[in-house]
Amino acid sequence: MRNGRIVALSGGIGGAKLALGLYRVLPASSLTVIVNTGDDFVHLGLNICPDVDTTLYTLAGLANTELGWGRGAETWTFMHALAELGGETWFRLGDGDLALHVERSRRLALGETLSDITAHVAQRFEIDAEIVPASDAPVRTRIATTEGDLPFQDYFVRLRCEPRVRALHYDGALAARPSPRAVAALSGVNLDAIIICPSNPYLSVDPMLAVAGFRDLIMNAAAPVVAVTPLVGGTALKGPTAKIMQELGMPLTPASVARHYEDLIDGFVVDERDAPLASGFPCPISVTDTVMTSLADRERVAQAVLDFARSLRPSPAVA
Amino acid sequence: MRNGRIVALSGGIGGAKLALGLYRVLPASSLTVIVNTGDDFVHLGLNICPDVDTTLYTLAGLANTELGWGRGAETWTFMHALAELGGETWFRLGDGDLALHVERSRRLALGETLSDITAHVAQRFEIDAEIVPASDAPVRTRIATTEGDLPFQDYFVRLRCEPRVRALHYDGALAARPSPRAVAALSGVNLDAIIICPSNPYLSVDPMLAVAGFRDLIMNAAAPVVAVTPLVGGTALKGPTAKIMQELGMPLTPASVARHYEDLIDGFVVDERDAPLASGFPCPISVTDTVMTSLADRERVAQAVLDFARSLRPSPAVA
Repeated sequence: MRNGRIVALSGGIGGAKLALGLYRVLPASSLTVIVNTGDDFVHLGLNICPDVDTTLYTLAGLANTELGWGRGAETWTFMHALAELGGETWFRLGDGDLALHVERSRRLALGETLSDITAHVAQRFEIDAEIVPASDAPVRTRIATTEGDLPFQDYFVRLRCEPRVRALHYDGALAARPSPRAVAALSGVNLDAIIICPSNPYLSVDPMLAVAGFRDLIMNAAAPVVAVTPLVGGTALKGPTAKIMQELGMPLTPASVARHYEDLIDGFVVDERDAPLASGFPCPISVTDTVMTSLADRERVAQAVLDFARSLRPSPAVA
Repeated sequence: MRNGRIVALSGGIGGAKLALGLYRVLPASSLTVIVNTGDDFVHLGLNICPDVDTTLYTLAGLANTELGWGRGAETWTFMHALAELGGETWFRLGDGDLALHVERSRRLALGETLSDITAHVAQRFEIDAEIVPASDAPVRTRIATTEGDLPFQDYFVRLRCEPRVRALHYDGALAARPSPRAVAALSGVNLDAIIICPSNPYLSVDPMLAVAGFRDLIMNAAAPVVAVTPLVGGTALKGPTAKIMQELGMPLTPASVARHYEDLIDGFVVDERDAPLASGFPCPISVTDTVMTSLADRERVAQAVLDFARSLRPSPAVA
């Protein structure tokens, strides 16, 4: 069991931190990161997959650590020239980052799958882990707000998460299927653990779980499932998780997140700052410092999560 | 007649030099540059119009004077990142240049015409001249060579014009029509002169003349038509004009080029270095120094061409 495969479900930045920790502490070729595609969109005619790209850049060591998104050693000549032309500049695309969107769009137009394209890029980046989109079919998060229905990037980037969320929809999820590599990883006999990264449950994890058949793959997997809290000290370190939970009327506690995943998880990792709130969980918990500032933090949290997962038994499969 | 409209037919770099000279010596808003689209192609999923872009950049003062193509103050992060991904890098696209291709592709996909998009860009670049694609329908120069049929950019950029040319084809030209602004400019009553820039006759001018109805517009225009030699001292200063003429069995003389345009032109401008070869012309000629190294050269040649054109009477219209 100690040399089995680890599957991580991840969104963008927060999730990718733990994914990087796992990548660094695990033996070569034993990590599969299944990544949210609900944020994907077509912009300027280009297919952009923000969470897949963040994961690729993070594991390749190419991420922009100053900005917290995009590529490092980036230039911005394209955006300046686009502004000069009167083009749409609310979604910022670095010159190097653009290569990934152009190349992916070109390959998608030729009929290649997002899975194959992502695997190709991971190989070019010499990443020794699988990075797998949750689905090859389009799933698009749409956010019902007090200001109307909004496509994800309009809500997230253009309007900076300001509208109040009333409900979330994952367009295309019912018609989509898990990508073949996601199915293979989740149904593999040598699966050691499934880890739900500290990503936004509504914006990053639920779009994957909404894909028809995805939830069953997790429930039937022969491995414990552990989720890591996205809340620290009663709030989210980054992003709109806490704001959305409040708007949806959910208590701002780790237990509330754990109950959101209730039928899926066998264990939940709580931040030590929230230990006083550590009650009302539907499953065993582990308390640790989940804040990942340094690379050593990422490795430490990854190891703690793996140790906890390995101490658990998977819940019996549900037919 | 002195304040009428001037129409220049131009390809890329060589033609744009004269177009810039004309732009600078003419009164505001009196120049229309009709530009070759036979070099246009779709690359990396993007609609690229090299001659239109060269003309836009040149008249906007944004051209890369070191490279002789593309934009000045350019960065190349996109190309480096694309190479990292294993993408196609034989056609070099600068980061700023890319904005024009992405924005044009986006607008074409929305159904806008190449003419309207080009006019929009010219306006954004504050160019006080019309820049007009010869046609809004695709015309694609295809080159029959000893190494087989080649799309233009494969011949020109990838194979550096090395294959021997046997014939030229302008795919789509018979189904295409001149763009509305080209029709308006060439059939306007206040047309003062039509100038065929010192561009490659086969690669830059003929793809425009091949568009159904384009040749008639010039022949019926109420203005003299003057062509400027692309040959200086028995060769072309740049590009494959001389090589292609030889491969097609044409004498390397200015008169040979003039006879190529015979039924269209009312006058031909010969370089002073070729004055000894100045016989056998089908029309009046003017001899001047046509080499345009400096900006002052461009203005001087433009003024000489305008003065010559204004001394000519148009040939009677041919029904």
